[in-house]
Amino acid sequence: MELTLPKGTRDFMPEEKIARDNIVSLLKETFKLYGYNPLETPAIENYETLASKYAGGSEILKEIYKLTDNAERKLGLRYDLTVPLARFISMNPMVKKPFKRYQIDRVWRDGPIKLGRYREFWQCDADIIGSKSMLADAELIAMASDFFRKLDMKVSISVNNRKLMNAMLESANVPRENQDDVILSIDKLSKIGISGVKKELEEKGIGYDIIDSIISVISTKGTSNLDVLDKLGRVVKTNDGINELRELLGYCSEFGLSSIMLDISLARGLSYYTGTVFEIFLEDKAVLSCSLAGGGRYDNMIGSFIGSKESMPAVGISFGLDTISDAARLLNKSVSRKSVVDAYIIPINTIRECIAMLKSLRKKNICSDMDFSGRSITKNLDYADKLGIKFVLILGEDELKKNKVNIKDMKTGDEKLVKFEDAVKLIKKNHL
Amino acid sequence: MELTLPKGTRDFMPEEKIARDNIVSLLKETFKLYGYNPLETPAIENYETLASKYAGGSEILKEIYKLTDNAERKLGLRYDLTVPLARFISMNPMVKKPFKRYQIDRVWRDGPIKLGRYREFWQCDADIIGSKSMLADAELIAMASDFFRKLDMKVSISVNNRKLMNAMLESANVPRENQDDVILSIDKLSKIGISGVKKELEEKGIGYDIIDSIISVISTKGTSNLDVLDKLGRVVKTNDGINELRELLGYCSEFGLSSIMLDISLARGLSYYTGTVFEIFLEDKAVLSCSLAGGGRYDNMIGSFIGSKESMPAVGISFGLDTISDAARLLNKSVSRKSVVDAYIIPINTIRECIAMLKSLRKKNICSDMDFSGRSITKNLDYADKLGIKFVLILGEDELKKNKVNIKDMKTGDEKLVKFEDAVKLIKKNHL
Repeated sequence: MELTLPKGTRDFMPEEKIARDNIVSLLKETFKLYGYNPLETPAIENYETLASKYAGGSEILKEIYKLTDNAERKLGLRYDLTVPLARFISMNPMVKKPFKRYQIDRVWRDGPIKLGRYREFWQCDADIIGSKSMLADAELIAMASDFFRKLDMKVSISVNNRKLMNAMLESANVPRENQDDVILSIDKLSKIGISGVKKELEEKGIGYDIIDSIISVISTKGTSNLDVLDKLGRVVKTNDGINELRELLGYCSEFGLSSIMLDISLARGLSYYTGTVFEIFLEDKAVLSCSLAGGGRYDNMIGSFIGSKESMPAVGISFGLDTISDAARLLNKSVSRKSVVDAYIIPINTIRECIAMLKSLRKKNICSDMDFSGRSITKNLDYADKLGIKFVLILGEDELKKNKVNIKDMKTGDEKLVKFEDAVKLIKKNHL
Repeated sequence: MELTLPKGTRDFMPEEKIARDNIVSLLKETFKLYGYNPLETPAIENYETLASKYAGGSEILKEIYKLTDNAERKLGLRYDLTVPLARFISMNPMVKKPFKRYQIDRVWRDGPIKLGRYREFWQCDADIIGSKSMLADAELIAMASDFFRKLDMKVSISVNNRKLMNAMLESANVPRENQDDVILSIDKLSKIGISGVKKELEEKGIGYDIIDSIISVISTKGTSNLDVLDKLGRVVKTNDGINELRELLGYCSEFGLSSIMLDISLARGLSYYTGTVFEIFLEDKAVLSCSLAGGGRYDNMIGSFIGSKESMPAVGISFGLDTISDAARLLNKSVSRKSVVDAYIIPINTIRECIAMLKSLRKKNICSDMDFSGRSITKNLDYADKLGIKFVLILGEDELKKNKVNIKDMKTGDEKLVKFEDAVKLIKKNHL
């Protein structure tokens, strides 16, 4: 039997997992700091839930991993964390609103595998259910900005509003049946440019007059975000999107966010967004061009799930663990350790005393390990070196007589005969 | 559409998830302290890997959730974390040994649902690959003991050795073809007693002479663990198991473990164990009788997986997150919070100033939140109360003029008009 991994799945070796766990820890801390509570939903959902027309849409249906249990019930692996959240809110109507929750968990999509796209991957989501206020949208953006600042990553944040997008399409007289197609093309503006969008719209059979109107409105420029909104206000018929964006940008500046960029071509695909949409990129797109996080407002989805006419306002953000990890690595901001161990003990006929040392180190909260196999010093030093362990403690009978221990700094090669307490101090000093 | 959860799966509401996350955090810290590094393997494995005859055995085959991808590849959800570890070691032969890894992750078994048994659940495993030494076995037990001490749970630890079990069966002349059946019955001794074991063996058609010999050897009692081993040493023909147990118990006492109990009926089912086996229970079994953790040595499994004749020594422990959570709750040792939020701000026409306070609290690492919806004070206080938030800060125009804020202790009901800095001190003091 030749052992392989299923296509699109990965093992994360300790070195990579330690780095990813650090990012996840920082995300969790940040989510909690902003008042988001953890929620866990199962990986398996009823297929019917996942395939609901109010869920991820028809495109995603092809990518659901289907399974049946022994009783022939139709199940599937979740493809995102939003549909399970909607299902949870529907099943638990008594949950106090606003309900702020985060979930950092695996999702699965049996889709095409590209560079940086996998079939099993992690999403890190925070959502507020039950608040209409643009303060909620602004807070999510502020939280993301705070997170990337703590990661020491310079990012740019683009925002838009789907109501504004709809109003722009209306003002350009785009027929209802073409709106989805047109949005998909406009969404690519930053990638393919005006001429690319124009070409796509022509290929989609949109009339020349309409294309000209579309290009004209999405090319609106201004001296500031608010200036662009003012200009658009004179063109579109309904001002809801513009008003929401004004409010959002106002709150963003209260939250101390200075570099929000209005991108009136941003749509975030055809999914369930109803208002605010936003995306976050590395400032230096030459390093990595895909978005690190994104989100928006989806006020209709949960209500439709419940089957109620009332909408249930909701806004959320999703961080991409893979792209953030990639960015951290590319920017050399990644914690790169092959082992969590700070001190490794080599006993030379001193197992008893070494166990005592090991116990003592661990009691002092120093991650430590010890040779259990009676290997030679050379082999042990090689092992510690390969794992990138910083300090090795060698205890032979000579050292034991002197009531001292040999401590070797694996980076510098320095070796010293010191009291155990001093070895501990040295290790602790280097860890901080 | 009526929304439900697939059978045997659960949502964990914030209150429960916060408590579980606390246990998981302590487990991770402990694993790292003992030198175990994180490894992540995918939830999906090739069906062939999971169904390997060296894997979980034929019983588990029925319980594998099967899936196929769009290219008709046969896949399955993992039912434990040990088979994926064996697969990983086989695929990555260059990994430095001993390889100490931990993994805390979901597994799935489509089996019968009983009280406390689910189809989707978490396992928390730590394993050492590549060390034959009984020091490794002892360290795992010491680590578990340390973990439960930190959780403030009194536990009892039972150990045995499969080589001793085999030697006892030999000494009782149990025919090879009956050995598995007999082990399964002996394993139940602590639950069903001597008479129960006897009855089961009779039903299984074991000869009366042999049953008498079995009962005689497994009834061996002594004044201490070592005394029992001495007595068994005079009965069995091969002493490997006894020697290993002597060594293990010696190392355990070096690690400071005083209350290890030798339980010569312990087998841990029919799975892949080859030497040491151990299980950990609450000392007070009246509170919860099922095991909280267990593990053992499985020296043959990984070698068989690789298809090599050489064995690859391995020993591991698995903690049950569900049973530990249950035990913590039953013993009132569980952290029970409905929200991570420590401070909740109610603005009364003071949104700007409240955003500034919110930013400041979060900068000071206080998990905080704020009303975004302009609700009444009464509604907001009710919300904070329902979520168990400790402090509420109320900022109206009056307070603003005085440059102070109203802080309300939700537990005592006390309300004070204080400077913001003093409010921060109060919140921080109460958090520690």
